[in-house]
Amino acid sequence: MKVIKDSVHDHIQVDGVARDLLDTPEIQRLRNIRQLGTVSLVYPSANHTRFEHSLGVYHLACEALEHLAIEGRQAERVRAAALLHDVGHGPFSHNLESLTHRRTGRYHDDVHGLLTDGTVGEVLREHDLDPDRVADLVAGEGRFGQVVSGELDVDRMDYLVRDAHHTGVPYGTIDHGRLVRELTFVDGELVLDEGNVQTAESLLVARALMNPTVYNHSVARISKAMLRRAAEGLLDAPDTDVDAATLQRMDDHDLIVALRSCERTATLSRRLDRRDLFKRAVWAEIDDVPGGIIESDHETIRDLEREISDRAEVDPANVILDVPSRPSMTESTTRVMVNGEIRRLGQQSPLVAALRAGQYSQWRLGVYSPPDLRERVGRAAVDVLGLDIDGALVSEVRDGLDATLDQFVD
Amino acid sequence: MKVIKDSVHDHIQVDGVARDLLDTPEIQRLRNIRQLGTVSLVYPSANHTRFEHSLGVYHLACEALEHLAIEGRQAERVRAAALLHDVGHGPFSHNLESLTHRRTGRYHDDVHGLLTDGTVGEVLREHDLDPDRVADLVAGEGRFGQVVSGELDVDRMDYLVRDAHHTGVPYGTIDHGRLVRELTFVDGELVLDEGNVQTAESLLVARALMNPTVYNHSVARISKAMLRRAAEGLLDAPDTDVDAATLQRMDDHDLIVALRSCERTATLSRRLDRRDLFKRAVWAEIDDVPGGIIESDHETIRDLEREISDRAEVDPANVILDVPSRPSMTESTTRVMVNGEIRRLGQQSPLVAALRAGQYSQWRLGVYSPPDLRERVGRAAVDVLGLDIDGALVSEVRDGLDATLDQFVD
Amino acid sequence: MKVIKDSVHDHIQVDGVARDLLDTPEIQRLRNIRQLGTVSLVYPSANHTRFEHSLGVYHLACEALEHLAIEGRQAERVRAAALLHDVGHGPFSHNLESLTHRRTGRYHDDVHGLLTDGTVGEVLREHDLDPDRVADLVAGEGRFGQVVSGELDVDRMDYLVRDAHHTGVPYGTIDHGRLVRELTFVDGELVLDEGNVQTAESLLVARALMNPTVYNHSVARISKAMLRRAAEGLLDAPDTDVDAATLQRMDDHDLIVALRSCERTATLSRRLDRRDLFKRAVWAEIDDVPGGIIESDHETIRDLEREISDRAEVDPANVILDVPSRPSMTESTTRVMVNGEIRRLGQQSPLVAALRAGQYSQWRLGVYSPPDLRERVGRAAVDVLGLDIDGALVSEVRDGLDATLDQFVD
Amino acid sequence: MKVIKDSVHDHIQVDGVARDLLDTPEIQRLRNIRQLGTVSLVYPSANHTRFEHSLGVYHLACEALEHLAIEGRQAERVRAAALLHDVGHGPFSHNLESLTHRRTGRYHDDVHGLLTDGTVGEVLREHDLDPDRVADLVAGEGRFGQVVSGELDVDRMDYLVRDAHHTGVPYGTIDHGRLVRELTFVDGELVLDEGNVQTAESLLVARALMNPTVYNHSVARISKAMLRRAAEGLLDAPDTDVDAATLQRMDDHDLIVALRSCERTATLSRRLDRRDLFKRAVWAEIDDVPGGIIESDHETIRDLEREISDRAEVDPANVILDVPSRPSMTESTTRVMVNGEIRRLGQQSPLVAALRAGQYSQWRLGVYSPPDLRERVGRAAVDVLGLDIDGALVSEVRDGLDATLDQFVD
Repeated sequence: MKVIKDSVHDHIQVDGVARDLLDTPEIQRLRNIRQLGTVSLVYPSANHTRFEHSLGVYHLACEALEHLAIEGRQAERVRAAALLHDVGHGPFSHNLESLTHRRTGRYHDDVHGLLTDGTVGEVLREHDLDPDRVADLVAGEGRFGQVVSGELDVDRMDYLVRDAHHTGVPYGTIDHGRLVRELTFVDGELVLDEGNVQTAESLLVARALMNPTVYNHSVARISKAMLRRAAEGLLDAPDTDVDAATLQRMDDHDLIVALRSCERTATLSRRLDRRDLFKRAVWAEIDDVPGGIIESDHETIRDLEREISDRAEVDPANVILDVPSRPSMTESTTRVMVNGEIRRLGQQSPLVAALRAGQYSQWRLGVYSPPDLRERVGRAAVDVLGLDIDGALVSEVRDGLDATLDQFVD
Repeated sequence: MKVIKDSVHDHIQVDGVARDLLDTPEIQRLRNIRQLGTVSLVYPSANHTRFEHSLGVYHLACEALEHLAIEGRQAERVRAAALLHDVGHGPFSHNLESLTHRRTGRYHDDVHGLLTDGTVGEVLREHDLDPDRVADLVAGEGRFGQVVSGELDVDRMDYLVRDAHHTGVPYGTIDHGRLVRELTFVDGELVLDEGNVQTAESLLVARALMNPTVYNHSVARISKAMLRRAAEGLLDAPDTDVDAATLQRMDDHDLIVALRSCERTATLSRRLDRRDLFKRAVWAEIDDVPGGIIESDHETIRDLEREISDRAEVDPANVILDVPSRPSMTESTTRVMVNGEIRRLGQQSPLVAALRAGQYSQWRLGVYSPPDLRERVGRAAVDVLGLDIDGALVSEVRDGLDATLDQFVD
Repeated sequence: MKVIKDSVHDHIQVDGVARDLLDTPEIQRLRNIRQLGTVSLVYPSANHTRFEHSLGVYHLACEALEHLAIEGRQAERVRAAALLHDVGHGPFSHNLESLTHRRTGRYHDDVHGLLTDGTVGEVLREHDLDPDRVADLVAGEGRFGQVVSGELDVDRMDYLVRDAHHTGVPYGTIDHGRLVRELTFVDGELVLDEGNVQTAESLLVARALMNPTVYNHSVARISKAMLRRAAEGLLDAPDTDVDAATLQRMDDHDLIVALRSCERTATLSRRLDRRDLFKRAVWAEIDDVPGGIIESDHETIRDLEREISDRAEVDPANVILDVPSRPSMTESTTRVMVNGEIRRLGQQSPLVAALRAGQYSQWRLGVYSPPDLRERVGRAAVDVLGLDIDGALVSEVRDGLDATLDQFVD
Repeated sequence: MKVIKDSVHDHIQVDGVARDLLDTPEIQRLRNIRQLGTVSLVYPSANHTRFEHSLGVYHLACEALEHLAIEGRQAERVRAAALLHDVGHGPFSHNLESLTHRRTGRYHDDVHGLLTDGTVGEVLREHDLDPDRVADLVAGEGRFGQVVSGELDVDRMDYLVRDAHHTGVPYGTIDHGRLVRELTFVDGELVLDEGNVQTAESLLVARALMNPTVYNHSVARISKAMLRRAAEGLLDAPDTDVDAATLQRMDDHDLIVALRSCERTATLSRRLDRRDLFKRAVWAEIDDVPGGIIESDHETIRDLEREISDRAEVDPANVILDVPSRPSMTESTTRVMVNGEIRRLGQQSPLVAALRAGQYSQWRLGVYSPPDLRERVGRAAVDVLGLDIDGALVSEVRDGLDATLDQFVD
């Protein structure tokens, strides 16, 4: 038995297959990938890694399995899947996902390969566990996959609490002890037991409050967009031979140094290193943005960026157009027992619709540029994208001010 | 300067008028009044008092005043009001308010008297502060009264965090540091500064989650109703001379011992002491209850209780009908700056309407009785009150079970 | 299964005999006894009770038993003893122990009676547990008694963490998770496993830092001495019929109200209620006090108090002489495995001797009186007790100042 | 005004010179240097950086200055020094200090250069602060230098609390709020005010408990020694042109990638990346080690390593000899007011001598090697170093076991 001290869950016992998985390069690599990517540029304490998060998810999975009275090989598979659920992550966690997926054309295959081949596959087979079935659990498939990846999964429970602990933002402090205790299987579905509508709501609310405050903080979005632009430059640079698959297997150290070393990305990289970031020129609500733009693909966005830089007469490197996808809320399908029957939280709770509406009202399209070019870039973007000028331009640009609205940035 | 160690805010500095007020019997008395009354029968750690809460409110008021750059006598008045805001509380805090107000016919006068007469009035006058103006602030009147008692007051900020700390329920963990910093006055109104819609929402959400989990937990409601019944018995007992005004000035110790000593209340008192509580026989949603009952006054409710006990052929002492008032949500009028103008949170945030709907769906009428009489009392109550039998009866009664649904009670 | 939410250990599961014991009047009574007695006059948040502490001790006992792999009836006995270990406590916990023991002439018998007679005895027998054997465990007897009451007991682990949580003083934050995990039995002795010298030291250090800061804070000692004097007055008052055995079975509410109601104790009681406390006139180090005084019994101390008041020409009610017993340190016998053999911590760790020396240097004899009589009482006490005048008198008395040195009192 | 959210101190306000210093590359670089170097291989949550620590030290310095009533340019200099105190750190914080100092032959000059030249010097001069005087404060010189770097400095207060928060080890939870409040200047010396012997002791005790548990945990020492060996290999590698000065200005990312890329260091680097660490073959107490070895310089130690590898007939790369310097305890000179005079804590408190003795008894010389070579290397080391064989060899080697003693390692 191995015992690991964790800043969130205190002592975590690691036994069985998990103990051997811990020593694989695939899991150890997660020590070098920050959980929240560029969010540490907003919240300087947010330096926690995918490694400690994976341990936390494993720990909560063990507790859930105990309360669900699941034992034996089935339980071992779930525990392995919990520990392994993030091995597919590239550097900076989710920050570069869209890029690497677009360039490699696959996501799930990769994870499947990581679990079946190499040391991880060996360890699983040594413990008589079928890597394919573990991979299915990681993908959220099957009855027990819901514990690892679903509306009520232990992944979410750990990251909300952990991200709150490390950013210092209190909104993620859910009652994971209660959540884990109240899970039960009814007709093969993972549900929260009777009397837990609030418990389920609290999970949604935590996400809804953490989203704008942490995960989608404007400075985190700007730096993420800059990082993505830099990483794309690295893939396309004539003086490197980094392709998307290589990038995906890097850790944060590799990528940061590669960006510093590559001529094409040196400027952006220095800006990120020095926190000398682009600023928002445009910050537009969903209703002020033509629908077509929201649905547009990567190539179209790159074209729009070029149009904006042309019109503004600035270097294309100085314009980033950041278009999030339409808001969604998967947690609304959380199942809760109410008066003896399974109900979807979305049917039961008026909060769900409200939180969805909240997400909609928080959606923003951003156009970013170096501070001294904001006015030119902002006005050009309004023209090119057909935005409502008053709603879209940030006030400094609109009013010609030099000030910044950001208060909670460092 | 006095420094007090607090489990929530760490070190609290007490200066000026507050320092002298601290030594008054009126403030010291608050050491003997539990903040959450009977909630400690659900959450055994919830033994914190109005005294430490008053200190916490004073501390947050000091911080708010500093950020609002308010100084001098105006600030001293606000600080005094913050420390004094709960001196009018009777034993068990809010648990017996409705009773004492009904019997004494006044609430605000009392507080006014406590602040202007006696030691408190003396101390205020020694510090050149007008007790009447401090009393106005406690009542939330005037520009600065909003800091002490309003939608964004420091009272709420302290109790949410403190009640969370002491119950162990994490839902009240708001970011009071940020709230206090972001307060500002615009056109004489206390508002949250630009960029704080989420901050305001988080305060509402915290209340909305703490309400059913802590403040209105069914066991807290049952024991509160039993306590109220006992206190009413004490006032009416032939062998005591306790009147409502006397009761209101008691502390928890006085009341508990008085209830133990009085013949008429000894049974209920022993039940409360031993946590041998009544159970729910009826637990009816708002839509299953005729509107007239919800609006009925105290006398009507006592009549209904007697009708139920008659029909069930049980002693009237064994039936309690607990009808909460209609749900409301004052925080919806919280003011937030959005794009340079003051908006009411209720206009801006879809969450407010959802939380109001949530409160509506959580509203319950309760009928309580000793466990062995639940079936008879429950069926009689359904008849007398004209309730829908399936929705109203708790399942043990409906199904003739002996089990209990309560899971998070001790 | 019952789950209770605790502010320290989060969720506590209560099963088996413990579940039934929870509902006994003996255990429920502990809700009304503050864990730290008069310490709440120094740390206003320290209102936690023996009830929540007993639950915490039960919880840690369950964890220790799991790690020690002890099951069955043996384990049930230990769990029962852990939950019951404080049922013998009188009002204000340890504050009045010396008084009631002196007057009743027994301590252990009482606890034995509480465990074997009444509801507790019934519940134990219903669960096939021998009350006598449970009483032995509570007394720390036998192999498993060490878990409940010994150098490494779970009682100490809970109270240090809990008292730190509620006072806000961080010194008690030991690593109870590790302590409980590292317990093991070697040759029938409870020891800390190899590699835990620091773990054992941290427990001692926590106590050594909490002692002067919390448990023996001068204001806590003064108010405890006043309470003891008042309780003694109550026992001797002609207008009450409270004897020591009755006093011992009271809870805090009973005693507080009794002291308020009794003519003889009304003055002291009002002082305690209003925190209008006596102050130190003398505060003498052990080397400045004749040895005979330290060893003197209760009667001698009462005689000395009378001599002091005579010489100072003040009412005897205005002089309290507070002589602690000689410092001791039971934790020094803690057993730790070092290089494969059991060692006493006192042999192994130079810290133990230092902490003992520290206790010695912190020992103080106190003479307390109302503030305006300090100078007269202090000088009379120096004469009567034969103290060194410069070392013993507190500076305000020595220098004729009116100020107070207390900074961390409220 | 800028407000930064910190996981330890919550909101940190950054004003004046500190605000501009924050944006310098020298300060931003600290984001990429982990506070505890290889300790994260033992405590996976310990990924906090020198950047957040520097902010914390700045924050505590502001609080201390406020309590000390120091204002104006003097205060600005101290605040600047607090924020800048770690800019001289190389990658992995203190882990490689001995190496870079030996190779560059200077330490203080470097820091002086960093503060006077470049952007930092510019910013300081823009704010009318003399960089030389700030550098003096960082070096702990002069009256106010004691606040930044001395026995009672804010550096220590921040790191103890922060390292406890991030490792999850509770021993560092000092009462920094009280420490900062109780600082005062007497005759130009920074002292803790009257009544704070325990407060001072608690700081020492925290360090004494954190040392073996965190800072000198055997696995942290092993990995630090491996890292040092690798870094030395990098400096000496024929295929790189990294010199000591370059190394010193790297951040963690640079160094990790450089070690991965360099042929000579690839093996050690892969071991560190995979946490496939050397193990202890020898772990000898100070009394079992000839004094000459403890005093020996770097060259002698390298010679001894070669002798050991020769005798064991293994590759020299597989033997690391780790000889800590003699234990010391600077905090013993902490000044505390006792009865109106300044005393050194070492005179006043028996704890200091005990903690020093404790350090002495915890001192260990280590010889590390790959697990499969432990026996050969261990026995060879015993011979070469002239150690007592029973005391020095770790039990697995002595007993030929394959097991590990490490319990709290991951």
